[in-house]
Amino acid sequence: MKIVLIGSTGHTKYVVNGLKDNYEDEIVAIAPGSEGESVEDLYQKLKLDYDLKKYDDYIEMLDELKPDVAAVACHFGDHARAAVEVLNRNIDLFVEKPIATTLAELAEVKSAYEKSDSKLAAMFGIRYNPWFLTAYKYIKEGAIGEVRLMNAQKSYRLGQREDFYKKRETYGGTIPWVGSHAIDWMQWLSGKDFKSVYASHSTIANQNHGELEVSALCHFDFEDQAAGSVNIDYLRPQNATSHDDDRIRIAGDKGVIEVLKEKVYLINDEIEGNRELPLVKKKEIFADFLDWVKGNGDCMITAEESFRVTEAALQARRSADQKKLIQF
Amino acid sequence: MKIVLIGSTGHTKYVVNGLKDNYEDEIVAIAPGSEGESVEDLYQKLKLDYDLKKYDDYIEMLDELKPDVAAVACHFGDHARAAVEVLNRNIDLFVEKPIATTLAELAEVKSAYEKSDSKLAAMFGIRYNPWFLTAYKYIKEGAIGEVRLMNAQKSYRLGQREDFYKKRETYGGTIPWVGSHAIDWMQWLSGKDFKSVYASHSTIANQNHGELEVSALCHFDFEDQAAGSVNIDYLRPQNATSHDDDRIRIAGDKGVIEVLKEKVYLINDEIEGNRELPLVKKKEIFADFLDWVKGNGDCMITAEESFRVTEAALQARRSADQKKLIQF
Repeated sequence: MKIVLIGSTGHTKYVVNGLKDNYEDEIVAIAPGSEGESVEDLYQKLKLDYDLKKYDDYIEMLDELKPDVAAVACHFGDHARAAVEVLNRNIDLFVEKPIATTLAELAEVKSAYEKSDSKLAAMFGIRYNPWFLTAYKYIKEGAIGEVRLMNAQKSYRLGQREDFYKKRETYGGTIPWVGSHAIDWMQWLSGKDFKSVYASHSTIANQNHGELEVSALCHFDFEDQAAGSVNIDYLRPQNATSHDDDRIRIAGDKGVIEVLKEKVYLINDEIEGNRELPLVKKKEIFADFLDWVKGNGDCMITAEESFRVTEAALQARRSADQKKLIQF
Repeated sequence: MKIVLIGSTGHTKYVVNGLKDNYEDEIVAIAPGSEGESVEDLYQKLKLDYDLKKYDDYIEMLDELKPDVAAVACHFGDHARAAVEVLNRNIDLFVEKPIATTLAELAEVKSAYEKSDSKLAAMFGIRYNPWFLTAYKYIKEGAIGEVRLMNAQKSYRLGQREDFYKKRETYGGTIPWVGSHAIDWMQWLSGKDFKSVYASHSTIANQNHGELEVSALCHFDFEDQAAGSVNIDYLRPQNATSHDDDRIRIAGDKGVIEVLKEKVYLINDEIEGNRELPLVKKKEIFADFLDWVKGNGDCMITAEESFRVTEAALQARRSADQKKLIQF
């Protein structure tokens, strides 16, 4: 498989890690997602392992190389445009979340996807961590019964972010960029679709990061009267022991499961006390995607989920902007 | 001080515990809050320590004994009626939360309070636990700076509840009964007032408890673009290590503080890693209230907060019933 990278901003490490010990497939070229993005650092790094080209223009790269797979991970406001170009050429697409930063652009990507033969998955890579895979496994085995209430958390250190984070147009907002992971966990783990959302966000205390929201809260109603919250912040102090503090707690009608500090805890009527679950093995998201592309089974992330979660995140952002409840 | 009890359903233990080692003040009588409530068990227990009377009718009790303080903790739908009778007699009132189970009754209690000379505090007794007092102390000392985002949790075992829990009219709903504690923590710890609320709740999986909601989620917007969620459930399995799992996490612009499993953790730029804080001593809510009544300083819970939190809880319940965003 010939793989190209558009951009070096998002989780390009998923692609690199997914190709470890894989001698069949290779990264053949890289290009920026826009003039404002430099891919030089990643290009220099990849040159140690791959005989790859660097392009200034990804359209030229796609047309000249006709790759099998394109991974799009540029400035977030450029995802959708690049995605459409990839899909229009029937190239399989591994795309950073959010797929688009406006609902109009999301519709364009969806339409291009429907017309194409491409496979598509968004980079909801946190699913593949052992603690999330473990929660998924136990929930699917019925450990907590039917999901009733979910509370997810994304908390990051802010540090000093690149300039494109400081503008809604290029960044897309904190609910889509940071929150969409947690929004994804909720629909994936519960198997329930979104019904409505109410959300809030604020740029207060963003330490000169322009339009970047450093706190946000989303309230989703799901099918079957289930509900779920996502709290998102960049307020984690620089001194904290880790960059992030991802969490989810899910209460079902037969028990409660929780991902906390990279461990998973379960209580239900069959277990005495609060049991720490043995973790299943980490998987590589891009390896999973490539297996799907090659016809070796499905990817754990479907195109439908990728679109739906992006839509949910953009509707949550709209709710927070307009201070109103939004029905799906 | 002559103290009477109206009802034996709510946290009458606050009164009993607050009078330990206090030989000045005594419980002189008890009466039910309605015909449907029996106070016999508590009466028999209190007789071991107090020379107290039992009445069938609390009006008669109030008029005959002219007590200094009445503690109201009957069926929740009867709080407001009893409170008004107490306030109309200028008796100081220690009242179970929610003060009222409808907004109309809350207005009646408020009006009676404004016309009276009574002191009033609602039984937000969880504040007085060491872990909450510790969080309060550190927040007030500036450990996390300005509050930006809060997430509070109330999770209980359901077990088998008395019949009056099964009807909205007598029970009042899970957001007011269980959730109001967490709603109280948020306004108390942040020092910020409520601006709006969106909430959801559901009776699904309530194990034949009629109208009792076993899951609920509230999203409050506060002053200064701060936000806070409360997730409430009765889904804690019977096998769990404790009846409840109270939590709050508060992110400020200088750090994050968290109450979890009766411990308190702080991270900020002055502390390396995640520091477990030394706990301050437990206090007794009713002892605090009695000190106020006697003119020895203020009670940590004000009448204004008691009313405001009840209102916030009832507005949240209304939001969940009507599926709409409500402005305060």
